[in-house]
Amino acid sequence: MPRFNARITVTLKDGVLDPQGKAIEGSLAALGHVGVNSVRQGKIFEVKLDATSKTEATKNLEAMCNDLLANTVIEDFTVEIVA
Amino acid sequence: MPRFNARITVTLKDGVLDPQGKAIEGSLAALGHVGVNSVRQGKIFEVKLDATSKTEATKNLEAMCNDLLANTVIEDFTVEIVA
Repeated sequence: MPRFNARITVTLKDGVLDPQGKAIEGSLAALGHVGVNSVRQGKIFEVKLDATSKTEATKNLEAMCNDLLANTVIEDFTVEIVA
Repeated sequence: MPRFNARITVTLKDGVLDPQGKAIEGSLAALGHVGVNSVRQGKIFEVKLDATSKTEATKNLEAMCNDLLANTVIEDFTVEIVA
């Protein structure tokens, strides 16, 4: 079965507060980095998986996001097959 | 000053153990997701910043990574200007 390298990106939905991002903004300012307007933090997962096709790989990865990797109430995810 | 949207990706260097990724691998298997060979977790930062040019924006973002956002002993980072 071919092996695919995928990258899943999980970010907070617009409008959801991101206290960690706010803290980073404050720290950057304290360190003298000017011009920063906003910081929002998210997660990525680099997944290597076996699947019969790229379509099946994408379908499986989306199922993983819905089951475990993302909280779809407050987070959006994107799945990208890199190679 | 123009405003840039940037995305910073921070990932563990190859060879650095990722216990969190291993735990996710185990959880995915327990949930019945077969075919997963490896999972590695990283972070992304979506930054909006003002800078005089794209080159200056990239330079500032790289400085932020070295100062705060990435631990360059064990992590790699990439900076990408999205818009």
